Amino acid sequence: MSDIQPGFKNRPLVCVQGLGFVGLAMATVIANACDRQGVPLYQVVGVDLPNNRERFELINQGILPFKSEDLSFEPKLKQAVLINKNLRATCDEAVYEQAQVVVVDIPLDIEKLSPVDYSHYALNAAGFKSAMRTLGQKISCDCLVIIETTVPPGFCSKVVKPILEQEFKARQIASCPQIAHSYERVMPGRDYLKSISNYFRTFAGNDAVSAKKAREFLSSIIKVEEFPLREETGTEASELAKILENSYRAVNIALIYEWTLLAEKMGINLFSVIEGIKVRSTHNNIMKPGFGVGGYCLTKDSLLALWSADNFYASAYGLPFSKQALEINDKMPLHALDLIAEATSLDNKKLAILGISYREDVGDTRFSPAEIFYREAEKRGAKCFVNDPYLDNWKEVPEAQFIAFDEGLSQMDILVFATRHNLYLEAGKEYLVQISKSQAFLVDTFDILDDDKIKFLLAHDREVIGVGKGHIKKLRQELNCPEF
Amino acid sequence: MSDIQPGFKNRPLVCVQGLGFVGLAMATVIANACDRQGVPLYQVVGVDLPNNRERFELINQGILPFKSEDLSFEPKLKQAVLINKNLRATCDEAVYEQAQVVVVDIPLDIEKLSPVDYSHYALNAAGFKSAMRTLGQKISCDCLVIIETTVPPGFCSKVVKPILEQEFKARQIASCPQIAHSYERVMPGRDYLKSISNYFRTFAGNDAVSAKKAREFLSSIIKVEEFPLREETGTEASELAKILENSYRAVNIALIYEWTLLAEKMGINLFSVIEGIKVRSTHNNIMKPGFGVGGYCLTKDSLLALWSADNFYASAYGLPFSKQALEINDKMPLHALDLIAEATSLDNKKLAILGISYREDVGDTRFSPAEIFYREAEKRGAKCFVNDPYLDNWKEVPEAQFIAFDEGLSQMDILVFATRHNLYLEAGKEYLVQISKSQAFLVDTFDILDDDKIKFLLAHDREVIGVGKGHIKKLRQELNCPEF
Repeated sequence: MSDIQPGFKNRPLVCVQGLGFVGLAMATVIANACDRQGVPLYQVVGVDLPNNRERFELINQGILPFKSEDLSFEPKLKQAVLINKNLRATCDEAVYEQAQVVVVDIPLDIEKLSPVDYSHYALNAAGFKSAMRTLGQKISCDCLVIIETTVPPGFCSKVVKPILEQEFKARQIASCPQIAHSYERVMPGRDYLKSISNYFRTFAGNDAVSAKKAREFLSSIIKVEEFPLREETGTEASELAKILENSYRAVNIALIYEWTLLAEKMGINLFSVIEGIKVRSTHNNIMKPGFGVGGYCLTKDSLLALWSADNFYASAYGLPFSKQALEINDKMPLHALDLIAEATSLDNKKLAILGISYREDVGDTRFSPAEIFYREAEKRGAKCFVNDPYLDNWKEVPEAQFIAFDEGLSQMDILVFATRHNLYLEAGKEYLVQISKSQAFLVDTFDILDDDKIKFLLAHDREVIGVGKGHIKKLRQELNCPEF
Repeated sequence: MSDIQPGFKNRPLVCVQGLGFVGLAMATVIANACDRQGVPLYQVVGVDLPNNRERFELINQGILPFKSEDLSFEPKLKQAVLINKNLRATCDEAVYEQAQVVVVDIPLDIEKLSPVDYSHYALNAAGFKSAMRTLGQKISCDCLVIIETTVPPGFCSKVVKPILEQEFKARQIASCPQIAHSYERVMPGRDYLKSISNYFRTFAGNDAVSAKKAREFLSSIIKVEEFPLREETGTEASELAKILENSYRAVNIALIYEWTLLAEKMGINLFSVIEGIKVRSTHNNIMKPGFGVGGYCLTKDSLLALWSADNFYASAYGLPFSKQALEINDKMPLHALDLIAEATSLDNKKLAILGISYREDVGDTRFSPAEIFYREAEKRGAKCFVNDPYLDNWKEVPEAQFIAFDEGLSQMDILVFATRHNLYLEAGKEYLVQISKSQAFLVDTFDILDDDKIKFLLAHDREVIGVGKGHIKKLRQELNCPEF
């Protein structure tokens, strides 16, 4: 172990396996964890596969290898790498040999046949299993492996443990591998690192020793006085908890879809109705209409549980609500497109998608509904352009042409507000008229335009369409706009 | 109008149409509404059909014609009827002629073919329509009709308004009838009346005048400083809001059903998992496993919206989640029965259902899941007995034999805790052993028995089964109980 920083030999070594969006954040938080005297508690090594060399080099210079809206992320990385010198990145798996804790943050993906159709899907576990095999070959018998990855419930005991046991056996290690599951609840945005250290955590160990060690470790990086840890019995419970959380969210979004369609037909402003329901504390999680669901978790997590029900527990009932929710949520951006197509032909129309991130005020396009919308709109003859204040390229749709949120939009026939970015919310009604051409369609998919703006736009010869905004019909009548 | 109380002639007359559970509570609250000097604001007459004479007599003596856990209900009724003398009940429809406001609290029922199967259902609107016709024939042209009944969205404008208009026309009244919709959010229990006066309200009028008058009236009976009114545009929005509220709840209960089945197979305590999820403010409405759903609203309201989608708005999409939720929720008590049947034969077993109310700490059996359970358990050969601290008869199952929550239960083979009444929650583990016989099955459908009690029961030769409590398997292993 030639490259362990001198002076840190006595500090426990924590390895973070996987240096993606979550892994690097975890590594940074762990490296910044200090005792009461402000002295770092751990020596941290982030480990990933050799094809990430470029990323290692950046990290080892204290440079964030991706964009983050959390302005504390890079300074904290720098602090750890350059000042404390207790964080570095490597692909040298030998480092696991000295680890007292390995935090696993490598992805476990579901491959879908296509969006919207979830009748066929596959679990792509090869990379994850191979990573577990590596750990089994390297770690010491009393190293705690904490799985943070969202896995099919049962995975730790039915897949991870047997692999580690097999490799331990090959190394003549008789003891039981120490495994815990504890899921992160990171939230992209300005408080990204805080969403790790200052938030509630659920965890479970595969036995009492693992649970105790996991509790100690998590208590050292999380503000547990304010956010007490929640311990479950058995890793299955922690694995299930993560997926149920996300399924709850996905189902509640899908529920509103059916009410959106009805409310539009009824001429109702569903946003307003829901605002009136949310006053009840028993109903304050009710979701609102929108453009669709994106991100790495909500678009797939339920399928991990379904996979588990099918493959581990022979559950005949399945998870009909949770599965159907994913399909419905993928359809949402197509509904916005249908609303437009009802009002005007898409053929040869110039259409600007305003906001391609799946979440407001971040630049994150993973599984963004904008991609589904973009591809279908192009297929139906529209020429799409995109804008996002947080992005200047679109990884998933590299051919997409970017356009500024300014007068250049006056060449567009259709403007679709597709993410609730502040930039769009704050645009005044005069500005909206200024940047759009006469008879342009402005499409509000996320309650970005209030009634005052809508009326102003209608009065200035713009057309307005809104998801969940059936009442625009009435506003048009009030202003004597012709029906379309 | 010979029977209007002298001295109250100058106070506005408010009629409450329908003197059921909600109507009488509303009438009592309205009659108790006072100005700042403590002087009653209104003269109130509750009106119902002539077949309710017995009920009128009780009310007119200040006696509550049904049981209520709200101990303030009868005193407030007495205060109004006997002291203030501003509330009485009648079937004389002539009283509507003088009314300035009519509050409509008559039921509008959905008839289901059977529980669990919702493929066929019918709206039974004859009584409601006839009541509207009566109003159209009697009320003055500037009387405000406030519909509190949960109706299919669109009903006020597409059914109530045309009926009133027709009758107005026959009486040569040219003006538009004044209609508002405002739904109550009453909650059976100790704070029943307060759930009217001290809670948020949504309302809407069919025009500006009706909306203004509805706001004024509601402001006089509700603590609007603390619970501001929410005004929607158009009665459709208020009608929809009520049903969406209840559908939200029903869908979230149904969602947990599929996770309950999985968690049981996985050996997980789902109650504990959900406790850990509820710490998130975005997830604190997540529901827990249970015995089933009952009551007048949650078991049918979604169908009113579905009826509306089909009959008023030609919506092809329907409300798949909301509808399916009702079916799933009806199945829940059968799942509890299946769990028992997996462990022991039901044939000739004496089975006690502990709690037949659909809600904890009230005596309300309307559409209680206990009825579905009772009938199916009897069909499968069990002999059922019932207990409920709030009831001594079961209207829907009059043949049911009541049994006390005491040593008499030691004749039972199976005890099913089916309502989360305090009485059951507070029963100590020794008492549970004392009142049950050796090898009896104790079935926990609502997290009534904690792990300590479960272990104690298992150690004392009782069997324990729990909905959503897959971890009992592990507790049995810890105690070396044989598998069944």
